[in-house]
Amino acid sequence: MNPDLSILTIAGSDSSGGAGVQADLKTITSFGCYGASVITALTAQNTLGVQAVHPCPPDFIEQQVISVLEDIPIHSIKTGMLYDAQIIQVIVRALKTHANKVPPLVCDPVCVSTSGDTLLQPEALGALIKELFPMTTLLTPNIPEAVALLSHTGQSIQINSLENMATAAEKLLGYGCRAVLLKGGHLAVKMADVQRLSRDLGPRVSIIRYGLTAENTEILRAGGGVPPVDLLVADILHEGRTVTLFIRPHINSKNTHGTGCTLSAALACELARSSNIIEAIKSATAYVHRGIEAAPRIGMGYGPLNHIHSVTRVPLSKPSLRNPYPLTTYFIENSQDVWKAYVQHDFVIQLGKGVLDKKSFVHFITQDYHYLKYYARAYGFLAAKSTNFSAITDAAETVLDIIREIQTHKLFCDSFGVSAEELEKIQESTTTTAYGAFILDMGLQGDDTKLFMAVIACLLGYGEVGLWLKSEAAKENSWVVLEGNPYKEWIDVYSGPHYQAAVRKGLGIIEKRAMADPPSAARLMDWLAVWIRCTELEKRFWDMAMDISW
Amino acid sequence: MNPDLSILTIAGSDSSGGAGVQADLKTITSFGCYGASVITALTAQNTLGVQAVHPCPPDFIEQQVISVLEDIPIHSIKTGMLYDAQIIQVIVRALKTHANKVPPLVCDPVCVSTSGDTLLQPEALGALIKELFPMTTLLTPNIPEAVALLSHTGQSIQINSLENMATAAEKLLGYGCRAVLLKGGHLAVKMADVQRLSRDLGPRVSIIRYGLTAENTEILRAGGGVPPVDLLVADILHEGRTVTLFIRPHINSKNTHGTGCTLSAALACELARSSNIIEAIKSATAYVHRGIEAAPRIGMGYGPLNHIHSVTRVPLSKPSLRNPYPLTTYFIENSQDVWKAYVQHDFVIQLGKGVLDKKSFVHFITQDYHYLKYYARAYGFLAAKSTNFSAITDAAETVLDIIREIQTHKLFCDSFGVSAEELEKIQESTTTTAYGAFILDMGLQGDDTKLFMAVIACLLGYGEVGLWLKSEAAKENSWVVLEGNPYKEWIDVYSGPHYQAAVRKGLGIIEKRAMADPPSAARLMDWLAVWIRCTELEKRFWDMAMDISW
Repeated sequence: MNPDLSILTIAGSDSSGGAGVQADLKTITSFGCYGASVITALTAQNTLGVQAVHPCPPDFIEQQVISVLEDIPIHSIKTGMLYDAQIIQVIVRALKTHANKVPPLVCDPVCVSTSGDTLLQPEALGALIKELFPMTTLLTPNIPEAVALLSHTGQSIQINSLENMATAAEKLLGYGCRAVLLKGGHLAVKMADVQRLSRDLGPRVSIIRYGLTAENTEILRAGGGVPPVDLLVADILHEGRTVTLFIRPHINSKNTHGTGCTLSAALACELARSSNIIEAIKSATAYVHRGIEAAPRIGMGYGPLNHIHSVTRVPLSKPSLRNPYPLTTYFIENSQDVWKAYVQHDFVIQLGKGVLDKKSFVHFITQDYHYLKYYARAYGFLAAKSTNFSAITDAAETVLDIIREIQTHKLFCDSFGVSAEELEKIQESTTTTAYGAFILDMGLQGDDTKLFMAVIACLLGYGEVGLWLKSEAAKENSWVVLEGNPYKEWIDVYSGPHYQAAVRKGLGIIEKRAMADPPSAARLMDWLAVWIRCTELEKRFWDMAMDISW
Repeated sequence: MNPDLSILTIAGSDSSGGAGVQADLKTITSFGCYGASVITALTAQNTLGVQAVHPCPPDFIEQQVISVLEDIPIHSIKTGMLYDAQIIQVIVRALKTHANKVPPLVCDPVCVSTSGDTLLQPEALGALIKELFPMTTLLTPNIPEAVALLSHTGQSIQINSLENMATAAEKLLGYGCRAVLLKGGHLAVKMADVQRLSRDLGPRVSIIRYGLTAENTEILRAGGGVPPVDLLVADILHEGRTVTLFIRPHINSKNTHGTGCTLSAALACELARSSNIIEAIKSATAYVHRGIEAAPRIGMGYGPLNHIHSVTRVPLSKPSLRNPYPLTTYFIENSQDVWKAYVQHDFVIQLGKGVLDKKSFVHFITQDYHYLKYYARAYGFLAAKSTNFSAITDAAETVLDIIREIQTHKLFCDSFGVSAEELEKIQESTTTTAYGAFILDMGLQGDDTKLFMAVIACLLGYGEVGLWLKSEAAKENSWVVLEGNPYKEWIDVYSGPHYQAAVRKGLGIIEKRAMADPPSAARLMDWLAVWIRCTELEKRFWDMAMDISW
């Protein structure tokens, strides 16, 4: 998505939303760009036809062009319905005067609607040819438009074959545009026609296929997919020295309202990104083809195509300056009660006050010793599941960090009267096993990211507890007592710079993973379930310590 | 995405694309709905202001409403800039006459643009109140609009506190709309204000928060995220008996062009889906908030928000009648050369002709015996990685299918002179180990779906080979010889109904997985890499058989 890439459409308005600036804006939005629009004429229209046209005053059209160009950097332009000669003239004048440099311009020489209504006054063809085509990067007529444009300058031609199409495209190029894409939607052809033209034109011609997986797909046909392709649509791109045929299956559909508008808007989006015309046409024709395939049932006549077949809503924002941790924020917002029950557990509060029963603390650290064995193994598992050295290194370093944490544990235990030997002999509680084994199960079930989601609640929760106790302690008359608190060292460790650096690193990693491979709604729910389960298990771990349960 | 859900916007056009029908269509598209539009007036406008206005003739506006309503079933309507009293009258008349039943209607009583320009003639307020409000489901004024609307009927009020806002919202409800959402964007408040109002209004009021994860998020603040929230924006929903406050952090931003248009369009989309006004407002206000957070830098004045922050392009179409296997089609289209080298391998061709060296075939089936041990284990691994009984059952049944395939293998081997005892003793080739261990590694690295992608190339490829040989054999004077072919039984097995049913089932599973958890671009590339690697390894397996290499 490139919301900074601005595309300007100069076209008519279609009240029914399937064509005109409406189709253009939908297309531009689906291509992830920003759309501005100059409306040349309004139509009262639906899928059955055009009921009324209200052309805008030329000077008002000119003002729209000026308002846009003087404020918004435009990366490409498409023109659609221009209605009459005077409108064409003011637009060309405004573009020449107010654009520092005219960006790539796709001209869709709209003459007649899909329903058969006139959208360009016949006398305006001359203005189109003389004024607009010389500044056009890519001209996109359909067959009737090509015939009308050529006969206007006395080059009458009948177009009923690919050969005629190629000839017409070459003649249209003579009007001065950089390239012509003559659209073959009105002429269904067969593969033999394509092969014949390809043979005749020789090495000048290339063929680009879409949706024609004819070879080695017996299994798809056997499964009821990919109906045998007989009729094709071929668009011909003429760039002077080279000719490119874009072929794809012909779709028998009434959902063709606004296909020309949509194609040219899609082309403008692609040309705003890159000057590669062939790649632009590949992408734009595929977009329109899939839009017809997936068309909704709207209206009683020539219905619109589906402009949103290739986009989906994402459940998570991207990180931004104002919201750098959208995933973690999502986790915490969607687990508020259990997260609070974990990080503000009675165990934590009594520990902060220094009044926690030593037996509970000993039970906690001795079980934590067992838990950390699982936790270290989980990072070993993560190393095994990682596919690049950087991730393998991170995981292995974390294993070693945990081993170091175990040394601190042993000292803690020792100072609370549990020797290293006794520690090894202490039985593992059910809660410890449940939590440790759950994490390893996430590694078995899922990919490296899911395993990471399982280890993060522990990392972040202890970080939160450490910071919370520290910040509470700093308040006047605080309930948190550090001086003389037997658990002061524990608080210092988890609020300290070393542990907090690990927290920030962990936060960074999960956010980065969610950005590099954005989760679907289903996957995000799966991650959230892991987060919530681990948060619950953390809470139960402290319940266990308080109850001295096994 | 609901491309069948049609939303009609009746509003002005903003050439710069940030407000008006342009913002509405972008919003409707981002919400996955279909947008139609009736344009009441055109503006030549940019982020700095409105340079010119061209109101449309009232009878032409009426015709637009009629064209849309008579052809397209509309699920909700929003109104924006209506410009003058006559326009309001023709619209209300057309809605009453041509809609069987007026769907949910969100009225954004646009009076003045963000840049300060007049968008509604002052004398039109009466028509708005008298004609449109009684058919309005949800009225969405901002504070200046609320003041203007109330003073028009002599109910002058100053709005400078939440209390005033609540009073104003209640008074506005008196105009006959079902609910009023008074937007607080012009009045930054503090949490204490919210608490005070909440206390005063008692149980009638509920508070809905967004973006206010104040509690238990020390780690996020320490990491530089979530700046402390001081100022809030509060919108007040008044439904007569109940009042709901929607609070969120105030964003200090100039990207507020078109926020009102966007909000009301988003509300219309939500109300087309469900009549739950509170859920609709939660979703729509969050959409606008995130749109401001993620705003692009466009224009020199009050810039637009980002309408596409919550959508992304998907690399894969959904299955449709015309394209039931988009994922498999994607795999085959993006691996054509290697896929062909696999399924039309010389080994296959010689096997079809019946001329394949028996030594090669024996090498193949004896190595395949070893390979199938990995393959069975891979499905065992898949069972272990599955989280529901249906998937566990499928995987276990496949293990047993493979065990049965091994019996066929033993018979083949026996008929080619390799006894069961000899078979066990035959050494495993490097290629067999590479392929088998690669599949298991995918199970170690990834989730169940990634492992499935690793087992599918074998399943589908053998199915393709079987069908291809069978269909070639059916042609006249075919190069494939079945009669007297020593490998006829092998061909029969893989083209037979039992194996082909497994192929169709496998196809269905990968397509279903891709639909239930749509892959990001990165994940799709990862799956494709697995598919290509397995396809290569299949090809090498037959190379190995031809060369009798180890």
